[in-house]
Amino acid sequence: MRPVITLLTDFGYESYFVPAMKGVILSLNPEALIIDITHSIPQFNVYKAAFTLWASYKYFPRGTIHVVVVDPGVGTSRRAIVIKTRNYYFVGPDNGVLMMAAEDDGIIDVRAIENREFMRPIMSSTFHGRDVFAPIAAYISLGLDVSLLGPRVTDPIKLQGITSRISRGFASSVIVYIDHFGNAYTGIKEGDLGVLGLKYGDELRVNIPRKNIELKVRFLRSYGYANEGEALVLVNSEGFLELSVNRGNFAQRFGVEEGDEVVISVIK
Amino acid sequence: MRPVITLLTDFGYESYFVPAMKGVILSLNPEALIIDITHSIPQFNVYKAAFTLWASYKYFPRGTIHVVVVDPGVGTSRRAIVIKTRNYYFVGPDNGVLMMAAEDDGIIDVRAIENREFMRPIMSSTFHGRDVFAPIAAYISLGLDVSLLGPRVTDPIKLQGITSRISRGFASSVIVYIDHFGNAYTGIKEGDLGVLGLKYGDELRVNIPRKNIELKVRFLRSYGYANEGEALVLVNSEGFLELSVNRGNFAQRFGVEEGDEVVISVIK
Amino acid sequence: MRPVITLLTDFGYESYFVPAMKGVILSLNPEALIIDITHSIPQFNVYKAAFTLWASYKYFPRGTIHVVVVDPGVGTSRRAIVIKTRNYYFVGPDNGVLMMAAEDDGIIDVRAIENREFMRPIMSSTFHGRDVFAPIAAYISLGLDVSLLGPRVTDPIKLQGITSRISRGFASSVIVYIDHFGNAYTGIKEGDLGVLGLKYGDELRVNIPRKNIELKVRFLRSYGYANEGEALVLVNSEGFLELSVNRGNFAQRFGVEEGDEVVISVIK
Repeated sequence: MRPVITLLTDFGYESYFVPAMKGVILSLNPEALIIDITHSIPQFNVYKAAFTLWASYKYFPRGTIHVVVVDPGVGTSRRAIVIKTRNYYFVGPDNGVLMMAAEDDGIIDVRAIENREFMRPIMSSTFHGRDVFAPIAAYISLGLDVSLLGPRVTDPIKLQGITSRISRGFASSVIVYIDHFGNAYTGIKEGDLGVLGLKYGDELRVNIPRKNIELKVRFLRSYGYANEGEALVLVNSEGFLELSVNRGNFAQRFGVEEGDEVVISVIK
Repeated sequence: MRPVITLLTDFGYESYFVPAMKGVILSLNPEALIIDITHSIPQFNVYKAAFTLWASYKYFPRGTIHVVVVDPGVGTSRRAIVIKTRNYYFVGPDNGVLMMAAEDDGIIDVRAIENREFMRPIMSSTFHGRDVFAPIAAYISLGLDVSLLGPRVTDPIKLQGITSRISRGFASSVIVYIDHFGNAYTGIKEGDLGVLGLKYGDELRVNIPRKNIELKVRFLRSYGYANEGEALVLVNSEGFLELSVNRGNFAQRFGVEEGDEVVISVIK
Repeated sequence: MRPVITLLTDFGYESYFVPAMKGVILSLNPEALIIDITHSIPQFNVYKAAFTLWASYKYFPRGTIHVVVVDPGVGTSRRAIVIKTRNYYFVGPDNGVLMMAAEDDGIIDVRAIENREFMRPIMSSTFHGRDVFAPIAAYISLGLDVSLLGPRVTDPIKLQGITSRISRGFASSVIVYIDHFGNAYTGIKEGDLGVLGLKYGDELRVNIPRKNIELKVRFLRSYGYANEGEALVLVNSEGFLELSVNRGNFAQRFGVEEGDEVVISVIK
């Protein structure tokens, strides 16, 4: 079966960085199938990259190699790592960007990338995507045993996880992700709904204190059950409570940003 | 031959939506070749998606499966459909987005997608691209007979077609598409030119009443025959009369938008 | 081995132009592997396209066919050309866009594309990407001898090359490229550093006269060796002296543009 390599970067689609990586991979393994996750991560936004990887890695075929290059510390002493998990490989800088997905799948081995034999012979200080991560991914797709890359890493850097506080009739978290349509994902999970006791049609109070926002909205099954322009709460495709406006843009309309605290309570 | 699956959405290139769809497809059919039409359709702009599909579907190999997810009604009772045409398959919501292309190719069968056997087992209410359309496309690429998906649909929703009014020395329509360079496509077709009696070099009067625009421009063979910055009319690659500015941006310069009425007449 | 065809255009990612080209290629050669360099070249910016091609072409497997469509003269008498180099093929308009890369690799043969047998039978005046360059690339990937395409070209158009002036303790050039992160590439090459006598940690004076900018910055190994927000000079991945701000955007902060003259001198 053709090995799949995915790429997730903050390099943008207009630069030569992404095709240079693809060329390096194809020169080493012409059979690799390269799929873009995205290259539009906001510059150096490690958290958004980690979330994007977490939300997409698991749909790929077993054995897929996920390469992430969101790497403000390139060229310094920050480590480069490979993580082998139950079903996948993850390749990138040791800044936490790989760990949300890797821990979700179940980590088997973490290795520091130190063996220069599997890097490009002439190596820049500023473009490890091309000179380190792309060739490493290509070699893994050819069957390289990751234990040959370098010593075991026991303390990979982790980002703060997604957390929420739940009590009867009340839940809070931060906005963890704002999507292309301006929908704001809370960190409150579908499984927490039992505690909230929600049914479709229930009214909720949504507070976003930092932005002085207090809304009364309905909990509905999908966007189209709200009136056009009506704000709503639903359980989204990733299992989170999501704040949305039917055929509108919640984040823009209310000025909400990732990281804002949100409190949702049931209206009796 | 490797089956081709194209994707056309309003999901943007920065989200995890598109790679999640690709992962689902590749997990079911690792041999599928996935090609992006575009993911930058303006949010919920069903007409622009339909035109973009129409302008590109026909260049793909026979048997290509075209998947479109521009779907403001996701999760409501709007139907999901598959259309089998003379040379292709089209998969998407029943909101008209598939029909301009499908009718152009010649419809053989339209089916409602109801058989949950070919969807993802855990299905969200908000991401049918991943949970319905991607797996259906993958199964079709593996040879699934579309009649197994659900009952025949006899009344798929259609968008209004592209129309023009022509009389001797005069033609009118709306602006049907504005392209990346700001060229404005009218709905007036090359075949109508006989009636207008145009030859290269002729002068035309272009009226766009809603924007109070009246221009005198030349009818030319290509952009480069006009002076730099000169507005012109030409027959474009899709066979439409097109309003352009050589090395400029017609739509921006004159404030023209899709849907604006345009009247073109020959200057004696 | 599967032949690789790369595409580099100013068509944008939202239009139907790129997928139409891909469909044409796949219809002629279903085994072709199509890789996007980028489609976000600023409209008609032949120089930026040439630089982007130069910075990426060489990483692709031997035999890769690089297609560039940044073509303000489409439909006029400007020639279309194919260049065979030591390791690659280059296909595009004869406006200089191919030459920086082709000369770098070593030109073997340049041919005008005139033989209509290898173009689409119905040819537009405005979309040679689809009607000329895509089918020519597909036929070359199938083994077509480029000498069958048309007569030899002995005077292909060239762009001005990247030049710098160096003397002891001083170097100047123009800003040749600004990347996705706002880093400004000078035309001063790593090999010139011997003349400047630079070591990491040295202080440099950077003058950009057109913008009235005079900075004192450090020469460092990579971004992360500067303080957050500190401007620096480094040798970048392409071997150029580069002006940068650690975790910031040099071009935006100082209003620098491609083409601005820059003078760098060593502070004693």
